[in-house]
Amino acid sequence: MDKIELSHGFGGSQTGELINKLIFEILYSEKDHFNGNDGAVLSAGERVALSTDSFVVSPLFFGEKSIGHLCVAGSVNDVLTCGAVPKYLTLSFIIEEGFEIESLKKILSDIKEECQKNSVRIVTGDTKVVPQGLCDGIYINTACLGEIKKIFSPKNIKPGDKILLSGTIGDHEAYLTILRNNLPFKSHIESDVAGLSPVLVPLLEKNFNIKAMRDPTRGGLATTLNELSSQCGYDFVVEDRKIPINDEVKAFCEITGLDKYTFASEGKMIIFVDPSDEKELLFYLKSYDNNAETIGEVTAETTGRVFLKTLVGTRILPMPTSGNLPRIC
Amino acid sequence: MDKIELSHGFGGSQTGELINKLIFEILYSEKDHFNGNDGAVLSAGERVALSTDSFVVSPLFFGEKSIGHLCVAGSVNDVLTCGAVPKYLTLSFIIEEGFEIESLKKILSDIKEECQKNSVRIVTGDTKVVPQGLCDGIYINTACLGEIKKIFSPKNIKPGDKILLSGTIGDHEAYLTILRNNLPFKSHIESDVAGLSPVLVPLLEKNFNIKAMRDPTRGGLATTLNELSSQCGYDFVVEDRKIPINDEVKAFCEITGLDKYTFASEGKMIIFVDPSDEKELLFYLKSYDNNAETIGEVTAETTGRVFLKTLVGTRILPMPTSGNLPRIC
Repeated sequence: MDKIELSHGFGGSQTGELINKLIFEILYSEKDHFNGNDGAVLSAGERVALSTDSFVVSPLFFGEKSIGHLCVAGSVNDVLTCGAVPKYLTLSFIIEEGFEIESLKKILSDIKEECQKNSVRIVTGDTKVVPQGLCDGIYINTACLGEIKKIFSPKNIKPGDKILLSGTIGDHEAYLTILRNNLPFKSHIESDVAGLSPVLVPLLEKNFNIKAMRDPTRGGLATTLNELSSQCGYDFVVEDRKIPINDEVKAFCEITGLDKYTFASEGKMIIFVDPSDEKELLFYLKSYDNNAETIGEVTAETTGRVFLKTLVGTRILPMPTSGNLPRIC
Repeated sequence: MDKIELSHGFGGSQTGELINKLIFEILYSEKDHFNGNDGAVLSAGERVALSTDSFVVSPLFFGEKSIGHLCVAGSVNDVLTCGAVPKYLTLSFIIEEGFEIESLKKILSDIKEECQKNSVRIVTGDTKVVPQGLCDGIYINTACLGEIKKIFSPKNIKPGDKILLSGTIGDHEAYLTILRNNLPFKSHIESDVAGLSPVLVPLLEKNFNIKAMRDPTRGGLATTLNELSSQCGYDFVVEDRKIPINDEVKAFCEITGLDKYTFASEGKMIIFVDPSDEKELLFYLKSYDNNAETIGEVTAETTGRVFLKTLVGTRILPMPTSGNLPRIC
């Protein structure tokens, strides 16, 4: 077998073969990880966090990373924003008839790699096959279940809180834009796709007074900050020169006229913290990524807007009305 | 707005409008059901069950039912098979550019209806939009989280256990086959899509010695019984004349030559129970659906096969190698 056939999706013996001989072989080291039921029975503490994302990214492989890394990282990061330790993942495929088995194997290996990095385990899944022309190779959905350690919420954000960013913004979308348009822009830009458990899970055990976290994915920093501002009710002020950005991403945005603040990252976190813990939190974040920075703060104003301080004055950082490129995640 | 546009998937203000003004308005009666985070914080007991399914059914609307009912029922029923009370649902859309907003509204209403019937609540979700031609209208993924009440597992199945079926088989796939092929077959066949919480949740509180449950979806009764037989290690014998089937579904299969035992149901359950509890369980199931029946039992043989007793002798009921129709769920 070298291509996915429609019969792999019928639920009979060929589906069983695909799942048992290919998917399980790659994903699980030990056989007993899977109970053979349609659902998984789990222990996850009294309070849990649950997130879900569907991934339709194009192309499926981008540099060193793929939809396999992305589909794990995306749901893991969403559970982290809830103050929870990501533990279990569901994995659901919609595969196009004719899809190369070799590509599926590569994606499965990437899924396994990202799961291991983030100490999450795939516990249940589903596989559907659709006829040629009704999907673009493969779409993947994951849901992540985690154990609550802290209560983070935009409602906790108060005037004076500091806004920290765990690293540079926009790398993922900049790289995909170059790749998708075959732009003759030579650069070292790479997608930053990464699950943030290694950085953030230890943080959940510490006594920092963190109020909220959110990862600036689709719609970028501008969208995420505007959403959080409207959810907490307070205005934010962030400083243009403090927002960490890769020089080449910045140059790419200047050349193309695209707005860097709307560019998605897939392995970064915005963290709101009480000012008394700012320095220590920044020190901690910098030990993982030296680009981490305090980019601004929450004000006492309640106009529901985000302001950007630049060298030539302060302007509104608006909520983008649309995006740059479809299917970046 | 009357059609989905690509910009509804960019994560900016148009995505916010779609989610807040359309999806939330239909799904939630009270505003405070959603916390505005990327994940949901939930209480679900120490032990939980988690299931996931992606739905790519065609057509999207079939008789009184739709992909909206199906995407709730499918994941709910999978959680029930784990011995858990379904409580929370994630909801993730992949929508094709140009999809009619009216159709989306109808699907959302159906989702709400099925959630209410099954006392489950949608707690988090995701919406992606793909360009025209890369999806067939809409694909939906759900994951369901439930609270464990009993431990069901194929490993618990022992020789002598009785095999019960909660109602007629094959209605869903028979109806879709007629619809998809525009067959001139006049009948009263309807899809049986239904979440089984109303029937099975009260059962989880009773003291029946139930060993395992499985819903005979894709691949039908033949697939499900063969999977369970190979998982528990014992052979099963089921009786042809006892297996409940709608007369018209049976006639349809006889006319077309299709195998009724490979036809999917979407609102039925196969239940394995200790023989001492058979009668009372059957009585209970019949109070919900008079077609419920004891269809066979587990034998002490360990050849990993399922046998079908017919009027003219006993034959093997094999695992189907492929299916009848793609995209029935």
